[in-house]
Amino acid sequence: MSKAWLDELTEVVGEQYIQTKKSSLIAYSFDATPNFQALPDAVISPKSTLEIQQIVKICAKHHIPIVPRGSGTNLAAGTTPTQGGVVILFTRMNKIIELDEENLTITVQPGVITETICHTVEEKGLFYPPDPSSMKISTIGGNINENSGGLRGLKYGVTKDYVLGLEVVLANGEVIRTGGKLAKDVAGYDLTCLLVGSEGTLGIITEATLKLIPEPESKQTLLATYDSIEKAAETVSSIIANKMTPATLEFIDQPTIKAVEDFSQVGLPTNAQAVLLIEQDGPAQLAERDIQTIEQLAVTHGAINTSIAETETEAHNLREARRTALSALARLSPTTILEDATVPRSEIATMVNAINDIAKKHNVTIATFGHAGDGNLHPTCTTDLRNEDEWERVEQAFEDIFEKAIELGGTITGEHGVGEMKSPYLEWKVGEQGLQVMKQLKQAFDPHNIMNPVKMFAKSTRKRVVVK
Amino acid sequence: MSKAWLDELTEVVGEQYIQTKKSSLIAYSFDATPNFQALPDAVISPKSTLEIQQIVKICAKHHIPIVPRGSGTNLAAGTTPTQGGVVILFTRMNKIIELDEENLTITVQPGVITETICHTVEEKGLFYPPDPSSMKISTIGGNINENSGGLRGLKYGVTKDYVLGLEVVLANGEVIRTGGKLAKDVAGYDLTCLLVGSEGTLGIITEATLKLIPEPESKQTLLATYDSIEKAAETVSSIIANKMTPATLEFIDQPTIKAVEDFSQVGLPTNAQAVLLIEQDGPAQLAERDIQTIEQLAVTHGAINTSIAETETEAHNLREARRTALSALARLSPTTILEDATVPRSEIATMVNAINDIAKKHNVTIATFGHAGDGNLHPTCTTDLRNEDEWERVEQAFEDIFEKAIELGGTITGEHGVGEMKSPYLEWKVGEQGLQVMKQLKQAFDPHNIMNPVKMFAKSTRKRVVVK
Repeated sequence: MSKAWLDELTEVVGEQYIQTKKSSLIAYSFDATPNFQALPDAVISPKSTLEIQQIVKICAKHHIPIVPRGSGTNLAAGTTPTQGGVVILFTRMNKIIELDEENLTITVQPGVITETICHTVEEKGLFYPPDPSSMKISTIGGNINENSGGLRGLKYGVTKDYVLGLEVVLANGEVIRTGGKLAKDVAGYDLTCLLVGSEGTLGIITEATLKLIPEPESKQTLLATYDSIEKAAETVSSIIANKMTPATLEFIDQPTIKAVEDFSQVGLPTNAQAVLLIEQDGPAQLAERDIQTIEQLAVTHGAINTSIAETETEAHNLREARRTALSALARLSPTTILEDATVPRSEIATMVNAINDIAKKHNVTIATFGHAGDGNLHPTCTTDLRNEDEWERVEQAFEDIFEKAIELGGTITGEHGVGEMKSPYLEWKVGEQGLQVMKQLKQAFDPHNIMNPVKMFAKSTRKRVVVK
Repeated sequence: MSKAWLDELTEVVGEQYIQTKKSSLIAYSFDATPNFQALPDAVISPKSTLEIQQIVKICAKHHIPIVPRGSGTNLAAGTTPTQGGVVILFTRMNKIIELDEENLTITVQPGVITETICHTVEEKGLFYPPDPSSMKISTIGGNINENSGGLRGLKYGVTKDYVLGLEVVLANGEVIRTGGKLAKDVAGYDLTCLLVGSEGTLGIITEATLKLIPEPESKQTLLATYDSIEKAAETVSSIIANKMTPATLEFIDQPTIKAVEDFSQVGLPTNAQAVLLIEQDGPAQLAERDIQTIEQLAVTHGAINTSIAETETEAHNLREARRTALSALARLSPTTILEDATVPRSEIATMVNAINDIAKKHNVTIATFGHAGDGNLHPTCTTDLRNEDEWERVEQAFEDIFEKAIELGGTITGEHGVGEMKSPYLEWKVGEQGLQVMKQLKQAFDPHNIMNPVKMFAKSTRKRVVVK
């Protein structure tokens, strides 16, 4: 340990909580995103906001990059220590500080596992809706930094809709507290909202107060099977047009169905071209009424089969099967790229067909599933990054997918974040002036660029050939 | 018209759309906030984003302040042209651009009246929930700049929860577009959220895409009468504790009841110490079930009378009566100050009692009503600003109220904004570091400080004597 700043950091947390051995550094050199890797100089596990302040002050003095990391489940290379420096873990800051049943809030440290929050509040009849597929292992700190979505977004929104207040250590080591246990607060700029989804580039979140809502009384689960993607997409449009807001409205295409069924064996129809997994929750009568109306709409729009889960076990298995889509597809090949191009929901069918055309054009394998109700698709490529020729075609295909999403009024990322991976494409969505504003904002918060550098902002934007 | 920059502006919009006569300037020298007034140099009514860009570029070149103004209904001196300059009106940018029934969005220019949006979407069975009391005359641009709340906030949230995308002219005259018709978008920082509630200090909103939801199928309205404030507050707590989320949960104290009844004559019990106006919406059976449960809770917690409106006319009258609270109280005296201190909802009773104690201590008259479900109270002082001695006591009283709100974990403003009026108190809520970050952010967006200057940030913070 030759570097003086490492000694300073060790003094803050104690030798036990700083790792500098090569073997440890390698473990934190990548996250769930293929093809992005870089060694940090140290991995540190502070126990308190105060220790984080001290760490940041040392890093600020020496201009050392800081990468806050939850469980590293993100899919946009948001937590790779691209420029080395210090990876901060929150494994020792994983406490639920307070569950306030009067104000319907829960206050947590960033290291708490998302599912732990869900289970804790459910015991009190309360509900924390954001449920990214990784919720069993992802941390709430990671979810907040990425503004994670999930399967319940259509009706309940995403992480940002549930963050009421934050404690944040700024790039100068000072602490701010934003918001509070408040349903409404317009005192100054909405820093809470700005920090949610800022991918660790503006500050380090050290505590969060989350909004809870009453738990829905009951839930109904419907599986609708189609012999064409268009008919599934038409059903999605008709549900919205009929003023229904299901809790979940998931689309799964044939290759994904097959992979999931092979993996989970819950009885999905592997010869169907598409299925919709639809859930409605609320008071029993209402949920039943809605799911029946939705079933009728599915039939009207050409579903070849529909079935409402008869038991909670059956419903749970369907839901969990959907959650395993990434793991199931990942078994098929050495490398899996899961993207999250998002379009206005009226463009779902157009986008799915475009993805399939793009896959054909570049001769790559892409399965697609996702949150149809949100227009948020997950085109997933099973490939092998050691095959250089194919890898290049995969990159070309995703570039085409991003371009198509933008052309349809969509975005390059609906819930995964920009990270390092999509940073060359950010300008496609926000424009030159938008990117300029974001860079100025970053500069205002973090003048020495030590907070998760090289994320969100690329050295250069990929050239875009707009074909209209 | 001696100033060269006025000639330049005239060239942009034409003589017809720029006012520089003293009589016109006086009309725009103040907004709905008492005791704040300053003459602008010109009042200008552009017809397009392009004209606004040209106006901003001229103002940027000459360092002329720009004050965007909707209908001037704000209560925090958010639109007084404190440093002169140009007031921009949106009377010619008042078109509904598109109602998209497939994606459930409406795209509007900033000058559209809020109520017009509500009525337009209701014709299609859709719902735009944010409903500030001023909605009959306020503009959507003003609502977005102030992140306006309303009576339906508890269940449906506030303006920021419905803004999906913005077109904004920056301080350099360039245009950015944020978000879109997208349920989810995490491409870069959430500029949409940051701009909502930024009070015109970061840019000029020239277009907005708003989220719509299906219109609730039915509505039930309950009036509960109390002989003590505590019992009303206990009812509020018990409703939340029983996992109910009413659409509206309004508190009105005795002085407000009396003023409203004198004004509206809808049959409010003028001898009651407090009433709660509670509404639930949704499918008929559910709304009925909920309102009956809530009625039972009101009785259990000591309501001396409860009544469910039997007709929509009766319900409408009660709702409209509540909306007239400010107008009704304003008739009582030459000057009315309506504040919006907000606390965690568990602190409602403590806060109302504290307000009454503070009024007594300073010998001033304060009536209180507000959105109890949100912890958002409107202590309203009827006074006369020509009475210098009393005016000083009024200011002292509100200072005490802000301090108490902060002490209870609340905020100085729940839905009105900071403006010029509350700028000396912003640091009380956000802290020295928080204020510093906000100033840096303002500097990043608006380096020459031409965008609504002297709003949000005061020259100095009021000294706060924290008594614990």
